[in-house]
Amino acid sequence: MEGKHFLPEKWEDKFREECGLFGVASSKKDAPQLTFFGLHALQHRGQESAGIVVGNGDDLEGKKGAGLVTQVFNQENLEDFHGKLGIGHVRYSMAGANLDANMQPLLIRSLKGSMALAHNGNLTNGHELRQELENNGSIFHSTLDMEILAHLLARPGFTDFEQALRESLLSLKGAYALVILRGETVYGARDPQGFRPLIIGEIDGDYMLASESCAFHTIGGRVVREVEPGEVVKLRAGKLESFRFSRPGPQKFCVFEYIYFARPDSSFSLDNVHRIRQKMGKQLASEYFPEGDLVIPVPDSGNSAAQGYAQARGLPFELGLIKNKYIGRSFIMPRQDMRETQVKLKLSPIRELIENRRVILIDDSLVRGTTSRYIVKMIREAGARSVHLGISSPPVSFSCYYGLDTTRRQELIAARKNTAEIAEHVGVDSLGYLSLQGLQKLFGKDLGYCDACFSGNYPLKTECSN
Amino acid sequence: MEGKHFLPEKWEDKFREECGLFGVASSKKDAPQLTFFGLHALQHRGQESAGIVVGNGDDLEGKKGAGLVTQVFNQENLEDFHGKLGIGHVRYSMAGANLDANMQPLLIRSLKGSMALAHNGNLTNGHELRQELENNGSIFHSTLDMEILAHLLARPGFTDFEQALRESLLSLKGAYALVILRGETVYGARDPQGFRPLIIGEIDGDYMLASESCAFHTIGGRVVREVEPGEVVKLRAGKLESFRFSRPGPQKFCVFEYIYFARPDSSFSLDNVHRIRQKMGKQLASEYFPEGDLVIPVPDSGNSAAQGYAQARGLPFELGLIKNKYIGRSFIMPRQDMRETQVKLKLSPIRELIENRRVILIDDSLVRGTTSRYIVKMIREAGARSVHLGISSPPVSFSCYYGLDTTRRQELIAARKNTAEIAEHVGVDSLGYLSLQGLQKLFGKDLGYCDACFSGNYPLKTECSN
Amino acid sequence: MEGKHFLPEKWEDKFREECGLFGVASSKKDAPQLTFFGLHALQHRGQESAGIVVGNGDDLEGKKGAGLVTQVFNQENLEDFHGKLGIGHVRYSMAGANLDANMQPLLIRSLKGSMALAHNGNLTNGHELRQELENNGSIFHSTLDMEILAHLLARPGFTDFEQALRESLLSLKGAYALVILRGETVYGARDPQGFRPLIIGEIDGDYMLASESCAFHTIGGRVVREVEPGEVVKLRAGKLESFRFSRPGPQKFCVFEYIYFARPDSSFSLDNVHRIRQKMGKQLASEYFPEGDLVIPVPDSGNSAAQGYAQARGLPFELGLIKNKYIGRSFIMPRQDMRETQVKLKLSPIRELIENRRVILIDDSLVRGTTSRYIVKMIREAGARSVHLGISSPPVSFSCYYGLDTTRRQELIAARKNTAEIAEHVGVDSLGYLSLQGLQKLFGKDLGYCDACFSGNYPLKTECSN
Amino acid sequence: MEGKHFLPEKWEDKFREECGLFGVASSKKDAPQLTFFGLHALQHRGQESAGIVVGNGDDLEGKKGAGLVTQVFNQENLEDFHGKLGIGHVRYSMAGANLDANMQPLLIRSLKGSMALAHNGNLTNGHELRQELENNGSIFHSTLDMEILAHLLARPGFTDFEQALRESLLSLKGAYALVILRGETVYGARDPQGFRPLIIGEIDGDYMLASESCAFHTIGGRVVREVEPGEVVKLRAGKLESFRFSRPGPQKFCVFEYIYFARPDSSFSLDNVHRIRQKMGKQLASEYFPEGDLVIPVPDSGNSAAQGYAQARGLPFELGLIKNKYIGRSFIMPRQDMRETQVKLKLSPIRELIENRRVILIDDSLVRGTTSRYIVKMIREAGARSVHLGISSPPVSFSCYYGLDTTRRQELIAARKNTAEIAEHVGVDSLGYLSLQGLQKLFGKDLGYCDACFSGNYPLKTECSN
Repeated sequence: MEGKHFLPEKWEDKFREECGLFGVASSKKDAPQLTFFGLHALQHRGQESAGIVVGNGDDLEGKKGAGLVTQVFNQENLEDFHGKLGIGHVRYSMAGANLDANMQPLLIRSLKGSMALAHNGNLTNGHELRQELENNGSIFHSTLDMEILAHLLARPGFTDFEQALRESLLSLKGAYALVILRGETVYGARDPQGFRPLIIGEIDGDYMLASESCAFHTIGGRVVREVEPGEVVKLRAGKLESFRFSRPGPQKFCVFEYIYFARPDSSFSLDNVHRIRQKMGKQLASEYFPEGDLVIPVPDSGNSAAQGYAQARGLPFELGLIKNKYIGRSFIMPRQDMRETQVKLKLSPIRELIENRRVILIDDSLVRGTTSRYIVKMIREAGARSVHLGISSPPVSFSCYYGLDTTRRQELIAARKNTAEIAEHVGVDSLGYLSLQGLQKLFGKDLGYCDACFSGNYPLKTECSN
Repeated sequence: MEGKHFLPEKWEDKFREECGLFGVASSKKDAPQLTFFGLHALQHRGQESAGIVVGNGDDLEGKKGAGLVTQVFNQENLEDFHGKLGIGHVRYSMAGANLDANMQPLLIRSLKGSMALAHNGNLTNGHELRQELENNGSIFHSTLDMEILAHLLARPGFTDFEQALRESLLSLKGAYALVILRGETVYGARDPQGFRPLIIGEIDGDYMLASESCAFHTIGGRVVREVEPGEVVKLRAGKLESFRFSRPGPQKFCVFEYIYFARPDSSFSLDNVHRIRQKMGKQLASEYFPEGDLVIPVPDSGNSAAQGYAQARGLPFELGLIKNKYIGRSFIMPRQDMRETQVKLKLSPIRELIENRRVILIDDSLVRGTTSRYIVKMIREAGARSVHLGISSPPVSFSCYYGLDTTRRQELIAARKNTAEIAEHVGVDSLGYLSLQGLQKLFGKDLGYCDACFSGNYPLKTECSN
Repeated sequence: MEGKHFLPEKWEDKFREECGLFGVASSKKDAPQLTFFGLHALQHRGQESAGIVVGNGDDLEGKKGAGLVTQVFNQENLEDFHGKLGIGHVRYSMAGANLDANMQPLLIRSLKGSMALAHNGNLTNGHELRQELENNGSIFHSTLDMEILAHLLARPGFTDFEQALRESLLSLKGAYALVILRGETVYGARDPQGFRPLIIGEIDGDYMLASESCAFHTIGGRVVREVEPGEVVKLRAGKLESFRFSRPGPQKFCVFEYIYFARPDSSFSLDNVHRIRQKMGKQLASEYFPEGDLVIPVPDSGNSAAQGYAQARGLPFELGLIKNKYIGRSFIMPRQDMRETQVKLKLSPIRELIENRRVILIDDSLVRGTTSRYIVKMIREAGARSVHLGISSPPVSFSCYYGLDTTRRQELIAARKNTAEIAEHVGVDSLGYLSLQGLQKLFGKDLGYCDACFSGNYPLKTECSN
Repeated sequence: MEGKHFLPEKWEDKFREECGLFGVASSKKDAPQLTFFGLHALQHRGQESAGIVVGNGDDLEGKKGAGLVTQVFNQENLEDFHGKLGIGHVRYSMAGANLDANMQPLLIRSLKGSMALAHNGNLTNGHELRQELENNGSIFHSTLDMEILAHLLARPGFTDFEQALRESLLSLKGAYALVILRGETVYGARDPQGFRPLIIGEIDGDYMLASESCAFHTIGGRVVREVEPGEVVKLRAGKLESFRFSRPGPQKFCVFEYIYFARPDSSFSLDNVHRIRQKMGKQLASEYFPEGDLVIPVPDSGNSAAQGYAQARGLPFELGLIKNKYIGRSFIMPRQDMRETQVKLKLSPIRELIENRRVILIDDSLVRGTTSRYIVKMIREAGARSVHLGISSPPVSFSCYYGLDTTRRQELIAARKNTAEIAEHVGVDSLGYLSLQGLQKLFGKDLGYCDACFSGNYPLKTECSN
């Protein structure tokens, strides 16, 4: 009966992260509230469903639903929840996947006690593991990678849970960060390459886990450190322990976390996200410098890079595209010209800034090229003399197998067209990308980042990479 | 956000059936529609959730939700469904059980193909089987008995599905009727005692399964026969096959199906339900015959028996309690005097019929005694000279372990009080039950019925029977 | 987004009442609760919208909405309401009329104090009065007759409100019962012919008004008397006063209140509704007596008459059509064969009662003939040897201008076809109506009833009568 | 049943505009779509309800509802609407005012034809006019000023509608812009002082009206000119006519439209809104120049002024406060610390930018001082060495009677405290407002602006000014 849920950002042409994770082992009974606020801060990582499981010992309670954290949860149902431990999850679901059964956290009920799991990422040997488990009698309710891990953990023969966890994680290949709530403990783990982020935080002497540091700031906490690749951390009230299930491989942290996914107020080990984006804008300014009168970001994704770019070029920075904040949750789009209409519902140019000016538009990335042409058209209709488009990352020419939106390679515009053709498609006078060399200069070459979507250098083989 | 769902009958003090089942293997693509109409006819067997899974071969699609069949499904979402095969389920959920994960049908996804299961009943060795399965590495998402069967079916070593089904069913003990959709086939099965009903129907040369025959009539079909205890039937387009997984035990069909659960227009092997209720009313008239001026049924449960009773006594039958049909789905009850208020919202006496008259009120059963006192009070306030209460079944003194609402024995009024004490509690001038002998006269002694809730003669041992 | 509201009875082919009214002047602050329960008991008089206005003195608060009383109001929003005085309204809206602006009670805000009005009926000089008022500068927000009265009451020159009320009511022609909440008083009035009902009740020394006496019984009150034609009653805490604005004309109480509208447990001055319907059934038995084996009512409208008919004929009375109570509020009907599908969703025959039997089906009235054919078809398909249809009122051949559903005469099947043609259309072996003489025998000829829909004898001229 | 509506900006401490208006007289049947998109662009002017009335000639259809334009309207219900003419309205409702009856447009039904009205502003002689009208028999359903105008227009004695309009507008005193749909014409008018904005636009040869020019840009139209103070414009398909009902007084356009209400991409006669805000920021920089390392706007209200300020001071401009875009419509706030929690749910500082820096925070205005302290606290907690707050408009010391949110003077922090006290209350190291002289320098002294909220110089007397 419910109808559509809130999809405010569907108009954007961006890669999508699969998930955001949060976990906490508190000394007080505030796990539901902390998890709620933590997830809300991670909402940009996934808007299609939200779930929280809380508990003390064996008695776990969970609630999941389609929509935003603030739609699924409210003061009333949060107060029905009780517990010192909690994990939570927000997700952007893959097209076609059964929405209901695939919501996370996954809650497993056992006569020995319950367990809840949530993850972010993508296994590269998922199909193979599943085949093997099914051959041994396992049954699956979902298509989630975490259901594979749950089966592995349940195999007979383990002496204790941590042994089971260590050995099961060794079976998994691919990109993952995960949180598990079981008994009195919240576990967190990252794959040996550390593709996906997972940070440890602290509040009033208790420990937390989150995909990004912004989740800790919102609730008054602070960052402790990142979970290391191949590490399992154990959170109990007031305690943080750790063990390794694998030697860390050469780290391959997803460079797109810096470029687009993470919130500007988050930081990873290299730097603050806003600051690195500014630097990318500055670097772009040294590579691509068309004549222009002012610099306008595509809001909000291009904001930080455009500030850096404008500063480096000595040009005025102007918020020349106004966002309409008021798109309700249930609006069903007109059938024709959907994307153009969506762009118009969301963005409006300030004509007086643009008329007769040479505009340099800055965005963080260009994936399918479906939206930019309408933004450019809009700026031209507002009277721009010329429009130049600077992208503060390299052309996305290769699919990702480690947890981003599963774009087929044919949909990536840079896999089919060269820069001149893309410029023509988008309708700009000139188009400039940050070079791969420029990117590597900032992030360090071979220093621990995965840039496979730009370079095609996949750190791990996959069952289906092409 | 949704709020409460439709609970129109919560005011009644009745045993509750756990479920209603439907299945069809059609030659046309009308399985969603047939299943919808079939389930709607079975709605009285459970109003808390409804689910349908349809498909052709491996590609199964399902939808489940809280509420009535006509709330979960509508013309629009039925048209999104495609398939020649379908199974469906309505249920009344046990208190405390996790609603979402326990909705049926259960949909199992496997690399070899998907499968959906739904059932009605209760295993008596469920805990034991579950323990064993968990020890062997199975993980559970729900507390459903059908998830046990799904695990049994998935065990390695079987040469084909039907062998797996035969052997797995042999492991189950207790009361169950079930439907399974897998590949091109809909399976149906009943336990060896045949506690719970499952009927085979036919429409345009194709076969169907349902808990009650009323489901076939609604859609223009006809009854073929009952599934036999210990039998598995296989429905494919235009075909009905069968095999046995067990010799039938002495049949123990639930006598409460005749007394209360089934719709009056349904029939089981003994007779039509309305007609047997009339006979129970007539039998009651030969055992309990207070002086009275008119006979009034508690609507709608007492209607048939009251007709028989009035006819046998030669007294006027009057529909003297009017039901208010308009209880919306979202009404939240006042906090105090809830039950009395609910009774008043639902029923009103016709004062002119009752004033200064000796009223004989007839109902089909008396379980907890929580509602009758308010109905009696209402009739007294309408001016009755005396109120006599006839119950067309024996006192319910024992809990049921075979699929009815899991009432604890202490809640059964007849387990704590004798007839005189119950009469006083309910506030009537006299109270008469049908005797167990009277019941057995109608149903035949030792002739294939379970009357454990009256007699305490449990046909099967349970893990927790007291 | 909300979708459809609850329309459980749309499948029935019946005249529709426009409204139900309730009012109370209590000494305690329980007006919201009393009004809620009173309206709920009157729900059968209109299911499309519900409204309550309560207050003390000038400060009136109101809430109106589409749907049932129990959908618009709940414990929570009732507790937000405060006041000793209250009026309420349920309605069935006329097709095409703007739903929102036409919901009642109408709440008029004035610098001198607020006022709320609600009514049941139809003015025959509404158009003319409206024309006159508009010519004098009045503006209208709705098409409600009560907005006309509100304008009349506001005309300058009156010395006090009661003078204004007296003179304004004299301007109105047609059928109406009304309640007004103003200051410390609830007023009630009926037109000089007394077409529409309005009853005075009492509870704990305070007075109430309602369209039917069943509203008083539900809340533990009792009937005092009917408001007389041409009378205004004034309710204040613990006080009942009265004055006349007109000499009563020859009373013309709507005979359809007895035949169909009112609930069986209500009574008007002649008799209890259930009892008069039984008598109509008996009278029909003396006029129409086909050979038959059993008598089955169309539930629930034919229940009382069928009991009387069966008793008079000495035939078994059987509730042979089972109603499915579970039609949710949001079910959108299939496009084709809507009415047949609706009938099948609502009703099922008990095949075992009907097979090879000669069935006499009894209903209270036959208006358009759109539903009966499907009920008859259903009974034939259940194996009836013959089907005879008895209608316990005369053929409806004339439109009503006094407050019933504004059926155009062409839609009335008895205005276009004779009895034999109707029998053929409906598909019965024989059809018998109660004769007009038979009706008049029961109600008394010229004794105060309007039977214009049967006889064409309109007591009042209308602007648009044909 | 519906629950709460979307209130994304309630956390802000700002004056509130009452309304946004749109109207169009098209040659095509696209009035519903144009009005929808136009209103959506004006959504920032009011988020509590939205309404559209469309029609051709007399047949008007309207829909109104609580919530955003995209919540009340969708593709489906827009397609049910037909018409070449349309008017629409969005509003922020005053506390306590009956929401439902006060939604606009107001739709008046008359036997001579229907009419719809919508307005933005506040009459200063509303009470007096209403008193007079009530004395003459008018009845009111709402507390809307437009209902007064509707009554004035309906007074008998006028020879035609335009005469009625001319004379009725002369009776009104105060601030208003309005649109009326009647017959084949859409009328627009502004009060003789031109307090509130109303602009004429053009699209494909047809004319439109809107509160701001951004509404025209969204739908591909262009600005023609402003409606002049004291002017009535008449829009018919392809035609624009005009007459005066009053000589224009000295213009008194609301200066707060430039400061806060209007969208940055809108323009009024003086200049583009974004550009004038930048200038205000520059002017502030010449009056208030604490030592600082970077300039951060309070998003989004301070964005433009902060850009101007940073440029003038030669300091880095940083978007150092990140907004969380994902606040769902139904979130119910925690009970305690509501405002602080709301601020935290909405805003997060970029710690790395702020730590050990001297921050100059820029906002456009400071009304009650309720939110700023939490923003300042947040910046301090992120490690700022010092926090300075620059406000790009003067202290708001006087209430507005011309259409802004009816703040009582006691709630205005600058009416109770001096700048030093406010700085202490807000928790900043220093606080600087733009001076009234500075403002007047930009807007021209005595050149047509109302700055009463800063200066106390009220251009019109009011019934209740203090």
